[in-house]
Amino acid sequence: MKLDRLLGFRFKETPSDCQVASHILMTRGAYIKNVGSGIFSLFPPAKRIAQKIEQIIREEMNAIDGQEVTFPVVMPASLWKESGRWDSVGSELLRFADRMGSDLVLGMTHEEAAVHLARGAAQSYQNYPFMIYQVQTKFRDEPRARAGLIRVREFTMKDAYSFHTSQEDLEAYYQKAYQAYVNIFNRCGLPEVISVKSDSGMMGGKVAHEFMLPTQIGEDYLAVCTACDYRSNMEVAQAVVKNENYGDAPLKKVHTPGIKTIDALAAFLHVAPQQTCKAVLYQKNADDAFVAVFLRGDLEVNEVKLRNLLGEEVHPAVNADAVFACGFVGPIGLPRGCTVVFDNSLRGTTNLVTGAGEADYHYTGFALERDVPEVRCSDVAKILDGGICPQCGNHSIRLTRGVEVGNIFQLGIKYTKSMEMTYLDQNGKPQYPIMGCYGIGVGRLMASGCEVRHDDYGPIWPMQIAPWQVHICALRAQEEAVAQAAGTLYDALQKAGIEVIFDDRKVSAGVMFSDADLLGVPVRVILSPKTLARNAMELTTRDKAIKKDLPLESIEKEIIALVNALRRA
Amino acid sequence: MKLDRLLGFRFKETPSDCQVASHILMTRGAYIKNVGSGIFSLFPPAKRIAQKIEQIIREEMNAIDGQEVTFPVVMPASLWKESGRWDSVGSELLRFADRMGSDLVLGMTHEEAAVHLARGAAQSYQNYPFMIYQVQTKFRDEPRARAGLIRVREFTMKDAYSFHTSQEDLEAYYQKAYQAYVNIFNRCGLPEVISVKSDSGMMGGKVAHEFMLPTQIGEDYLAVCTACDYRSNMEVAQAVVKNENYGDAPLKKVHTPGIKTIDALAAFLHVAPQQTCKAVLYQKNADDAFVAVFLRGDLEVNEVKLRNLLGEEVHPAVNADAVFACGFVGPIGLPRGCTVVFDNSLRGTTNLVTGAGEADYHYTGFALERDVPEVRCSDVAKILDGGICPQCGNHSIRLTRGVEVGNIFQLGIKYTKSMEMTYLDQNGKPQYPIMGCYGIGVGRLMASGCEVRHDDYGPIWPMQIAPWQVHICALRAQEEAVAQAAGTLYDALQKAGIEVIFDDRKVSAGVMFSDADLLGVPVRVILSPKTLARNAMELTTRDKAIKKDLPLESIEKEIIALVNALRRA
Repeated sequence: MKLDRLLGFRFKETPSDCQVASHILMTRGAYIKNVGSGIFSLFPPAKRIAQKIEQIIREEMNAIDGQEVTFPVVMPASLWKESGRWDSVGSELLRFADRMGSDLVLGMTHEEAAVHLARGAAQSYQNYPFMIYQVQTKFRDEPRARAGLIRVREFTMKDAYSFHTSQEDLEAYYQKAYQAYVNIFNRCGLPEVISVKSDSGMMGGKVAHEFMLPTQIGEDYLAVCTACDYRSNMEVAQAVVKNENYGDAPLKKVHTPGIKTIDALAAFLHVAPQQTCKAVLYQKNADDAFVAVFLRGDLEVNEVKLRNLLGEEVHPAVNADAVFACGFVGPIGLPRGCTVVFDNSLRGTTNLVTGAGEADYHYTGFALERDVPEVRCSDVAKILDGGICPQCGNHSIRLTRGVEVGNIFQLGIKYTKSMEMTYLDQNGKPQYPIMGCYGIGVGRLMASGCEVRHDDYGPIWPMQIAPWQVHICALRAQEEAVAQAAGTLYDALQKAGIEVIFDDRKVSAGVMFSDADLLGVPVRVILSPKTLARNAMELTTRDKAIKKDLPLESIEKEIIALVNALRRA
Repeated sequence: MKLDRLLGFRFKETPSDCQVASHILMTRGAYIKNVGSGIFSLFPPAKRIAQKIEQIIREEMNAIDGQEVTFPVVMPASLWKESGRWDSVGSELLRFADRMGSDLVLGMTHEEAAVHLARGAAQSYQNYPFMIYQVQTKFRDEPRARAGLIRVREFTMKDAYSFHTSQEDLEAYYQKAYQAYVNIFNRCGLPEVISVKSDSGMMGGKVAHEFMLPTQIGEDYLAVCTACDYRSNMEVAQAVVKNENYGDAPLKKVHTPGIKTIDALAAFLHVAPQQTCKAVLYQKNADDAFVAVFLRGDLEVNEVKLRNLLGEEVHPAVNADAVFACGFVGPIGLPRGCTVVFDNSLRGTTNLVTGAGEADYHYTGFALERDVPEVRCSDVAKILDGGICPQCGNHSIRLTRGVEVGNIFQLGIKYTKSMEMTYLDQNGKPQYPIMGCYGIGVGRLMASGCEVRHDDYGPIWPMQIAPWQVHICALRAQEEAVAQAAGTLYDALQKAGIEVIFDDRKVSAGVMFSDADLLGVPVRVILSPKTLARNAMELTTRDKAIKKDLPLESIEKEIIALVNALRRA
């Protein structure tokens, strides 16, 4: 299309309310416009990118026998009451009432709707397995919308749901879905997306993977092994540590006046922080009961693992002073009723320093198994950067940040059971189907693609998802020769099925190029009286890999060949 | 795809909650599933039809330079407060608050969002005209959801918004949009869609057309001339009547004890109802003030025209007895403060019977212009079936019912002015852009297509929007010869780009054919040991126009040719 027809006002200044590159560049380039907190409209370039991503997703979903359907955006509360999530999900589920006073919710995920649709439609084991999916608008009443399309409230998501008659069949399909996801990110020109093991959170189920695009603006921390293929969300990564042998020593109370932190304690007693046993206090959300977590002094508590271990929500303790000698808490002499958790990092340790349970005193010579009879240890510590890989055992863990662009879950029968969806097995016996679910956020994938593919001047879109494939900059197009050469090329490329954005505005080269940079089209062709004088047009790629003159005779052929080569890249 | 993989349970019984054919057949055929009042999920066949309709719409919108965008489903109330519709639209606009207590609405139409997106993006007259559109989910809190997808609360709609610098430019574009709509309905295989003049309702603006699919289940009444091309929604159709000349007579009060209806009055006084002047009482919604409408006794009030004339909402009068001698109300002696409206049907009339304004009395000999000085008449009567065409003057009006499947409006500057969207004209002076808007309901088009194209056994989808193009019924496919011939045909057709649904289930011919009828695929190929024995397969079309044997040698070629012919039809 002609650039002068494209709706959008592009500009140079960094908008004051934008912090991350994708938000800045997609605002400056007129891709998105903020309508309300976490709510955006898409201008044509973003819509084009989204549609290309959606098309790739559809093709890969269809290739694994997915059947496209539509679930409602607005659902009656009754569906969510059936599954139990009306009560279990927090206020990110937007609840409201219609004119008749009936309770409704805005769909943030569609397990309930999928079971509702499939229930009654697949009554025999012969109907299984099947997968249904949609690409649709969702709403999550996110308290901290931020970073443009990275964390929004309203978003377009592909969500898929598979139904199986056995765990083995689910697992086999899960592998196919996993591979489809790898294909999708590759085909979107974003092969650096990695998969990590993840926590299944409010979705239920046991096995889950997240697909992460590593970028410093990500909110998730990932543990990635540089020696093997181990990758995990830090939330669930197993922390493996090796302890020094500090020898045996008797338990001895020492006076440590006002020494309340591990660093102060280690300095005061001339030991390494690793030789201490630290206490971290929590309270259960349900009844405010205290939970004391003990772990090696240099480690931190991974609260997701702690919650999963306890099977309930906890928060850092408030006003523990009334019950504990804070700063001096140790495993000995804890108040009654306090839940106690020992991290694996204390297993087999001896001769540690730990709190004595009274103000201004610590113990030295603490030995876990000796001093705490029948102790059991669990994995509740955060994995360390440079720490030990739980898979290959090398000190090769690197922590990095990433944006979650997709996820896959093995759900089990959580939803089919609660919503009473059954089929008859080969023996005529009713059974609950086993489910998997599979999501990709379209807008977030687009924005995080921009995060990892941009320079100071704009996005550098991969050919596969770029809003257009070729950008023609015709400088001084008011001159007949330029207008004619540009028009001929524009027509020829369009005829060849290439998507072209054509700029023949009467503006300076600077304006033309900065607009082209913001639109991020991979292949750019520049022509002007100067280039025509040397019987050529200039070809550049947005990533600066190519910059050369092309003779007029072969220009169309060469551009088409380049577009096709980049499309396959 | 293989039919045994298709999700959906098809059945024969008419569901108890379905009244109209499309709702019955699309439920029985597993196209749709009701999730809540006016809220549906779409099974794969309906999704496929919807996507085909959407693709046709996109192509036609792009052909008139439409740029596809996305507006939010959920919008902050502030946008609707800017336009004034937060207050002016009733409870069909679903309003609610998020977790922070901020007011939100569910988009039922997107004029506000379109102006919000375009505002600031088109600041110079050189940026005009432009049109932006989306295909998206909308929600209207409809109090009487009914008839499956015909009247729902959540629906997918294509909505387009054009912006212009002059009324002439809008009108020229409006004509292009009108033609695009004609193309869309033709290309969807529904050429019987007609356009009618319509009321612009809550949208504002003056000129509007609705596109109606005539069907008896429609809620709109249309006035269609059988002699010329006049077509109008009855709501706005001009009522033209010819009055008899009843001669002159003096005004005379006559005793008509208990005679309160026109029919009783006409019988009592031996006159035709046409020789009476009827009163109909309303009250203004704003202040309950009375409105008395007078019109010829055989006619009815068109309340839309009345509202437009008064410029405010009215409702039929309640408890008028306290103020009026009901049943005996006439133009003479009306209470003070009552708004009076005379319909055009009374213009020039003489010697009519009308109420005397006191119980049990009427006047005879009433002559409007003589007895009501300086009277002005307006058009507030309903057009009659068999009545006079306001365009060609023949008695050729037929009333029919239709479903509104699309509409186009000339909006003017209602939204750009209230939301302060301006551009600089050639003289550097700020101006409000002039808008048009253009909608099509995708699901309603699908369902009303089914209304006009079905038999007792299922929908008869036009090739252009059918969920599949060819349906192969392989009877006794457990026999090797059938399986092989069917498989070969299935592969060959798919390779040729034909969309095929392939039924090789071990079920009876009856089950197979009734499922095929419900899926409504235009071309059906039946093979069995019997047909193969005569070296043939049977070709039938869903509309029963064709039923013949095709020899095995040429079957692929003939089917492909037929599909292509029907696609172009």
